[in-house]
Amino acid sequence: MPRFKEIRRAYGFDEVALVPGEVTINPEQVDIEFELGDLTFSLPVLAAAMDAVVDPSLAILLDKLGGLAVLNLEGIQTRYENPNEVLTEIIQAASSEVTLLLQKVYSQPIKENLIAERIQQIKRAGAICAASVTPANTKRFTTIAVEAGIDILIIQSTVTTARHISKSPRGLIFSELCRATPVPIIVGNCVNYDTALQLMRAGIAGILVGIGPGATCTTREVLGIGVPQVTATMDCAAAREEYFRESGRYVAVITDGGIRTGGDLCKAFASGADAVMLGAILAQADEAPGKGYHWGMSSPHPSLPRGTRIKVGTAAHLEQIFFGPTSVSDGTQNLIGALRAAMGICGAANLKEMHRVKMMVAPAIKMEGKFWQLASH
Amino acid sequence: MPRFKEIRRAYGFDEVALVPGEVTINPEQVDIEFELGDLTFSLPVLAAAMDAVVDPSLAILLDKLGGLAVLNLEGIQTRYENPNEVLTEIIQAASSEVTLLLQKVYSQPIKENLIAERIQQIKRAGAICAASVTPANTKRFTTIAVEAGIDILIIQSTVTTARHISKSPRGLIFSELCRATPVPIIVGNCVNYDTALQLMRAGIAGILVGIGPGATCTTREVLGIGVPQVTATMDCAAAREEYFRESGRYVAVITDGGIRTGGDLCKAFASGADAVMLGAILAQADEAPGKGYHWGMSSPHPSLPRGTRIKVGTAAHLEQIFFGPTSVSDGTQNLIGALRAAMGICGAANLKEMHRVKMMVAPAIKMEGKFWQLASH
Amino acid sequence: MPRFKEIRRAYGFDEVALVPGEVTINPEQVDIEFELGDLTFSLPVLAAAMDAVVDPSLAILLDKLGGLAVLNLEGIQTRYENPNEVLTEIIQAASSEVTLLLQKVYSQPIKENLIAERIQQIKRAGAICAASVTPANTKRFTTIAVEAGIDILIIQSTVTTARHISKSPRGLIFSELCRATPVPIIVGNCVNYDTALQLMRAGIAGILVGIGPGATCTTREVLGIGVPQVTATMDCAAAREEYFRESGRYVAVITDGGIRTGGDLCKAFASGADAVMLGAILAQADEAPGKGYHWGMSSPHPSLPRGTRIKVGTAAHLEQIFFGPTSVSDGTQNLIGALRAAMGICGAANLKEMHRVKMMVAPAIKMEGKFWQLASH
Amino acid sequence: MPRFKEIRRAYGFDEVALVPGEVTINPEQVDIEFELGDLTFSLPVLAAAMDAVVDPSLAILLDKLGGLAVLNLEGIQTRYENPNEVLTEIIQAASSEVTLLLQKVYSQPIKENLIAERIQQIKRAGAICAASVTPANTKRFTTIAVEAGIDILIIQSTVTTARHISKSPRGLIFSELCRATPVPIIVGNCVNYDTALQLMRAGIAGILVGIGPGATCTTREVLGIGVPQVTATMDCAAAREEYFRESGRYVAVITDGGIRTGGDLCKAFASGADAVMLGAILAQADEAPGKGYHWGMSSPHPSLPRGTRIKVGTAAHLEQIFFGPTSVSDGTQNLIGALRAAMGICGAANLKEMHRVKMMVAPAIKMEGKFWQLASH
Repeated sequence: MPRFKEIRRAYGFDEVALVPGEVTINPEQVDIEFELGDLTFSLPVLAAAMDAVVDPSLAILLDKLGGLAVLNLEGIQTRYENPNEVLTEIIQAASSEVTLLLQKVYSQPIKENLIAERIQQIKRAGAICAASVTPANTKRFTTIAVEAGIDILIIQSTVTTARHISKSPRGLIFSELCRATPVPIIVGNCVNYDTALQLMRAGIAGILVGIGPGATCTTREVLGIGVPQVTATMDCAAAREEYFRESGRYVAVITDGGIRTGGDLCKAFASGADAVMLGAILAQADEAPGKGYHWGMSSPHPSLPRGTRIKVGTAAHLEQIFFGPTSVSDGTQNLIGALRAAMGICGAANLKEMHRVKMMVAPAIKMEGKFWQLASH
Repeated sequence: MPRFKEIRRAYGFDEVALVPGEVTINPEQVDIEFELGDLTFSLPVLAAAMDAVVDPSLAILLDKLGGLAVLNLEGIQTRYENPNEVLTEIIQAASSEVTLLLQKVYSQPIKENLIAERIQQIKRAGAICAASVTPANTKRFTTIAVEAGIDILIIQSTVTTARHISKSPRGLIFSELCRATPVPIIVGNCVNYDTALQLMRAGIAGILVGIGPGATCTTREVLGIGVPQVTATMDCAAAREEYFRESGRYVAVITDGGIRTGGDLCKAFASGADAVMLGAILAQADEAPGKGYHWGMSSPHPSLPRGTRIKVGTAAHLEQIFFGPTSVSDGTQNLIGALRAAMGICGAANLKEMHRVKMMVAPAIKMEGKFWQLASH
Repeated sequence: MPRFKEIRRAYGFDEVALVPGEVTINPEQVDIEFELGDLTFSLPVLAAAMDAVVDPSLAILLDKLGGLAVLNLEGIQTRYENPNEVLTEIIQAASSEVTLLLQKVYSQPIKENLIAERIQQIKRAGAICAASVTPANTKRFTTIAVEAGIDILIIQSTVTTARHISKSPRGLIFSELCRATPVPIIVGNCVNYDTALQLMRAGIAGILVGIGPGATCTTREVLGIGVPQVTATMDCAAAREEYFRESGRYVAVITDGGIRTGGDLCKAFASGADAVMLGAILAQADEAPGKGYHWGMSSPHPSLPRGTRIKVGTAAHLEQIFFGPTSVSDGTQNLIGALRAAMGICGAANLKEMHRVKMMVAPAIKMEGKFWQLASH
Repeated sequence: MPRFKEIRRAYGFDEVALVPGEVTINPEQVDIEFELGDLTFSLPVLAAAMDAVVDPSLAILLDKLGGLAVLNLEGIQTRYENPNEVLTEIIQAASSEVTLLLQKVYSQPIKENLIAERIQQIKRAGAICAASVTPANTKRFTTIAVEAGIDILIIQSTVTTARHISKSPRGLIFSELCRATPVPIIVGNCVNYDTALQLMRAGIAGILVGIGPGATCTTREVLGIGVPQVTATMDCAAAREEYFRESGRYVAVITDGGIRTGGDLCKAFASGADAVMLGAILAQADEAPGKGYHWGMSSPHPSLPRGTRIKVGTAAHLEQIFFGPTSVSDGTQNLIGALRAAMGICGAANLKEMHRVKMMVAPAIKMEGKFWQLASH
């Protein structure tokens, strides 16, 4: 019987586990540096360009900790002279009114002078500045951002491809943009080998990986689209290896979305990630602008439902989330401690060695019973 | 050790996800036209021949929206001069009495004059008219229906094959019927390659795909029979491709059953469907004759239990269910908006290109925790 | 890396579904006869040798319906002159006392005169008489049973093999027993190809298939032993085919255990069963001696926990359980109606054709939501 | 499309089942002896080196029963002259205070004189004495322990490899240690073929298998690391076979962690284990020092959360846990009765034959419904 099409099995974080290696390394001796173009970060973590996660203050703080925050150039920070007023309004709104309020807040026009102002706020503090735009606004905002001193440009939409078919006059061509722009460009999101390879060939410095990774994502439920993150990261990492073979240039693969614990973060690196982008988990930081609340970006599909505001609580200082100490045992804090420990156990001296660590498919079947949390003593 | 038989893995909607393509398309530019014989529909959706879903009014309304409703020629509409009275009786019956009432209602004889009358009601409004009969009544009702002006004939039972063995005198032979009938014939339901190919060779214009797709279907629980819809659609689509290669004639594959969200609908097309048939999801339309209730067809196995009435509620206008706008985020509304968005993301310019979109096996494991619905921002 | 051992995937009823065939048959025209040695049964069903399921009355009733009940020669019927008194005592015991009572009841000695008496009770009514003994008692009871007029002998323990290693003097040798015994012998339970083939070569007429089929079986939980029934039946059926090829003699494969619905029963036949043995589902019959209660056989492992009494309720007359009519839709009644319907849909004219029906792996994922029971209309 | 890496499917206890063999053996006749170096144990069970499980009294008791308890040389017994006082304090502490208390208790220094004292307590009773140290303390404590008369040395940490990279001066080299130490050395934990083979080549007498076997283990959740126990045991057993082929020396594989029932224990042996190490299941013994409570070892990663105290209750005497009789049917008691029964059913005359018993992948899908615990009668 002929088959209509083959369908490959894809895996998410919950379905895999790392296998210890043949050598162990003292966690303090593993190297977790992340390189992007000529820049080097001691923390391989990007904070997502969401208004509840990143504002200039958080960007400056994360820079001090060694990571990189991405400022959303199309959010509250660039629509309002006084963004804190608007943030407070969202945080304090009654649940019944928040959807309407979010729609109103994000319908205000973006002010070009604020784009420059926010970037300079970060740069004045001596921090590296990364900021994101959507493809539709890229041409309009890139020049402003570059002139304002931006260090890294992120072009992000739910799904990005090297080629887009539209009725509108000539759209964004990534190869031209990369040539014309003097700073490294990160593009996303993407989940497949061919698209990743085409974007790399266009000259990008990094790629954001992740579309509808979890079954409860709107993209997955409403559109049926999505690739679990382990497989998505592995496929884009395979494109990076292929592109490196053909060009000698190494493009950063950044897993974006679906990381809920230190364990997930370790698995992202073992799946081939050079860095990870975190959103919800950082919205819980005491210093996050959302002050314990989180909301999604305005939806790119206006006829589909928009994100809503949810309470995530404030769990710890940003520094604790990355480096501990922590009293919680659910894996949501001391993420970098977990990464170093896992690399040590798996015998990975640096992130490129972490890419070669073995993984197994080992579904997260919950063990029932009263005392099995200690079962492996 | 010799094996007794091989058993192949089959997949349902919940177990697969679509993979974005190498190019993206503006959703407004994708073409979702569906062709059946010489007819073209702007909406690739059929409304199921169920009394709670389709009456002449709804058929006329759906025609205006671009789709095709199928009137049940063996239901309330053709047994009662005044069907609305009977519908009201069913809707208002106490739960304890409804099973008996349904048995009584469907034991009334079908009136041949009403077959003609209902078809003409639809035709007088200028709408395309499709109506369904069971195999046992096909010979008796087809002539009446054709003379009344029917445009498309659907012959539907739980399971239909090209050949049926029975003690009764000479049964239905599809090849003869197709030759003798001047309108396109859709036959179903079917789930496998060989049967689909035989029915196509008999001359049918379309095939309904779906038998016991979900584990809770009566067919699946009581009889153990059923094929999950992704695999069923792919197998019948493989038969369509084979038949097209051998004959040059293209037969429509229509996925019928199991579609609960826009995501499922997108996956049906990516599995090879040319159109989908919707039942329960349309019973929720304000304009559906069930007025917020839904009940199954009288069972083809009288000694097995019959369907019962269930409350589905009225969720939105039919137009909103297809085109939005919507405030719900569970994927049950703006189905066509979702289809266009998914096709755009997957780079499918039309439904035939949607057939070639990649799918992965990516089980719908629910992510636990308080804020993960935004995890993929 | 060398592998320590291969582990094959096994399937249970919940994980597979039948695929409709290329032809459909009128359910009344399918032949479900079951042959065992020279005997033919119109109902391919055996009632399990459990005290809550079979007593002489039920054996006579089931004979009239066309099936075969197996009387337990080591249970209450052969330990007590007046078994109904003891049954009533068990049924009426308080929950807190029933385990002790069961231990006491089954510690009474078996009376040889009652073995003959119970067999003759059944024979006097003109019914075919089948009865079961354990391997340890086979030599002792077989002569009595044969002289009393038994038609079929069942030798049953949790796990039976052709060879048993023990310190005790010369044990049971099936090939000698089969030669020496003038009635057909059914042996069980068994789940694997090699053992089934050896037992068939020893001359048995039928084999009972099923050890620890479900994850909640004591055998599975306490000992870790068990093979899901679809795979167990297929493997024993493969042995039957092989033995038939080498000897020309056809041995009946009887799936015993794990069948909860008509769907499961249909799948057992599609997995290669010639008949099924039912226990708990028949304990619910109004005429069952357990009067709505059910309890296991005394455990063959005295240091492991014994079965307990559970309430199953009385659901319907035995005839209704097999042939309907029924008002329940969970598949626990009208089992033979379901079998005929499934065979008709799958195009199987008799049970041997049912063996060739296609199955797919289609896990029983429950669909969530309010109205999906009608989703496949 | 090139793949980034292959990921193999791994299996846990819940996902497999044993297949009965072609011969059955009387359970009393199976041989379950376990050999370690020159020592032979009639019970192939080690009690884990946890303070709630093993103290000198329990070690002496388990020796009498034929098994081997491992005393933790870095726990309460060697930090306190009067450990029972401290144990009582932990057991009686309020839940809110226990974490702090545990941190305080385990921060007291280890007293070298108590190491000798505890070992001699066990030896004076005529029992075999096994005790565990962590790699960091191995050099320091081994001489003391050997001089005190220890019979077996266990070197245990979450993950152990033959090679460890660290800034500290020359670390532990297992091959040197094995040559220099006059008693057999067991090392762990380990889960993979290559590491196991390297450790065996270093001269160890036994290997502990198990890292993050269950999804709820801290190692698995926080670090993403872990291999389900069936696969971990099979891979280490494959290394044992390979090492035996190359050297003629047989190294014991000891499955450590994740065993909750007799069924799990049987599966560990069928996966290739020569013995099992039990923790939580023995903490429930009346004679365990935890008196119904259990707590983990102080964490090897101080910046990650520490274990907490949980109530496990006292279920039975240690002897009953191993040999019955039992009134519970959940498989947590009469573990050795279960092992003997399973070996008898699977036709395994000794543990090496148990290694060759067939297993199948048979997921533990719970059967729903009221009476299916008896369904397989």
